[in-house]
Amino acid sequence: MTLELYHGGPGANSLKVLLVMEEKKIPFVDHRLNLVKFEQHDPEFVKINPRGQVPVLIHDGRQITESTVICEYLDALYPQVPLRPKDEYWRAQMRIWTKFVDEYFCWCVSTLGWEALGKRFVRDMPEKEFEEYVARVPLHEQKIKWRNARNGFGETVLSEERRKILFSVAKLEHDLGERKWLAGDNYSLADICTYSICFGVPFLYPEAMNDKASPRSMAWLNAVSERPATKAVMATRPPRQ
Amino acid sequence: MTLELYHGGPGANSLKVLLVMEEKKIPFVDHRLNLVKFEQHDPEFVKINPRGQVPVLIHDGRQITESTVICEYLDALYPQVPLRPKDEYWRAQMRIWTKFVDEYFCWCVSTLGWEALGKRFVRDMPEKEFEEYVARVPLHEQKIKWRNARNGFGETVLSEERRKILFSVAKLEHDLGERKWLAGDNYSLADICTYSICFGVPFLYPEAMNDKASPRSMAWLNAVSERPATKAVMATRPPRQ
Repeated sequence: MTLELYHGGPGANSLKVLLVMEEKKIPFVDHRLNLVKFEQHDPEFVKINPRGQVPVLIHDGRQITESTVICEYLDALYPQVPLRPKDEYWRAQMRIWTKFVDEYFCWCVSTLGWEALGKRFVRDMPEKEFEEYVARVPLHEQKIKWRNARNGFGETVLSEERRKILFSVAKLEHDLGERKWLAGDNYSLADICTYSICFGVPFLYPEAMNDKASPRSMAWLNAVSERPATKAVMATRPPRQ
Repeated sequence: MTLELYHGGPGANSLKVLLVMEEKKIPFVDHRLNLVKFEQHDPEFVKINPRGQVPVLIHDGRQITESTVICEYLDALYPQVPLRPKDEYWRAQMRIWTKFVDEYFCWCVSTLGWEALGKRFVRDMPEKEFEEYVARVPLHEQKIKWRNARNGFGETVLSEERRKILFSVAKLEHDLGERKWLAGDNYSLADICTYSICFGVPFLYPEAMNDKASPRSMAWLNAVSERPATKAVMATRPPRQ
C-alpha cells in the first residue's frame, strides 16, 4: 500500500491531514508544494487536482480530495490510534464541529488571512504578472478571492468577518466549558480540524482570542500545541518571510 | 429506544432524513413543523434548536442537528439497509458529494427558492408584521436572507447563483457518466442528499436541468423518484398553495 500526500505544509487544510498522519505515525510519500510560489496552480499539479487545491491524497493510484474527508478516510484505514469517537452520538458531534469549521469558521479566518497575504504577496505585484497568475487559477471563486486580496477586501467585509470569528470563538468557549475536547473526553478530528484553521487567530485578530477574552479556547489551543505530534508537524514550518 | 424527528416535511434538508427513515423503515415520533407558518421560529421550537432550523433528531433525549450528520448517524445505528458504501474509497466519494451539496449546490438552489418564496409569502406582508417576524429569526444570516427574499435578491445575485447551478449540474452529469449512482454501484447518502436539494431544479430553473441539457441527471432524478421510499415520502407533500 502506498499513500502519497500533496500538501502545502503545516497550515490550514493541509495541516489537518499532516496532524492525522503524525498522530497515527502513517508513512507517506511527501509532496510539499510551495503555496507562496503558487505551485498549487502549476499545470503539473492541476493535472492531479483540476481544482488546484491542496491537500490531495493518492492511495494506490486512487485520489481523494477535501481535507476533512481525507481525515475520516485515514482514521478508517488506520484505526489503531482512533481519532473519531466510538460512540455514534459523539461521532456526530465531531462531524457537526468539522462541518461548522468547513462551512463557516474557516471562511472568516481565511479572509483575514488573505487580506494579510495580499499585502505581503500580491498587492505590489506588477499588473501583468498578477493577471498572468490569476489566469492560471482554476476555480472561479478563487480568482475573485485573489483579486480581492490584491485590492483589499474593504472594511465592510472585514468587519463582518470579524463578527463571524467572534461568533465562532464564543462557540468554542461554550463547548469547552462543557467538555475537555470538542467531541467529548478524547482528542478527535474535531480538535484537529478546528485547531488547523484557528491556531493563528490569536495573531491575526488578537482581540478575539486571548487569555482574557477566551481563556478556555486559549488553554485548548495550548493543549493541542503541546501534543508531540503537533510539535513535530509545526516544527516543519518555514521561518516567516 | 425512542427517536423523535422535528422536520419541515419532504423538502430540502428535512427530506434527506425522511428518505433515510423510509428506506430503512425506522420508526420515529413525527413532529412536522409548518415552515410556511414559520413554526421553526416559534419560541417553543427554538428551545429545542436555538438556531431555529429543522431537521432535529432526538435520540433518547440526546439531540443531533445538521441533516447530513443525522443521515450518517442513522446509517450507523441501522446498518441493515446500508446507505453508505462499505469500501472506504467510495465512502469518501460519498462524503465529497454530500459536502459539495452542503457547501455549494444547496446555497444557489436555495437562493432561487427563496426568491420564489419571497414573492409568495413575504413580499406583500405588511411592514410591521414582517419586522415582527424577522425579530424572531434566531440566526443573523437568516434574518438577512429573509430581508433579501422580501426585497428580491436582484439580477446580479440571481445570475451568479444560476451560474453555480449550471456548474453543479455539470458535475452531476460528469459523475453520472462514470457510474450508476453518485458514490458507485449502489444507492447511497450521496444520492439522497443531492436529490433532496435538487429535485426541484427542473421547475425552478428549467434551462439548467432538462432532458436535453442534462439527460443523465434527469434519468437519475427519475430513478430516485421511482424508488418506493421516495414515492412514499413525497406523497406526504401538501398540494401547492
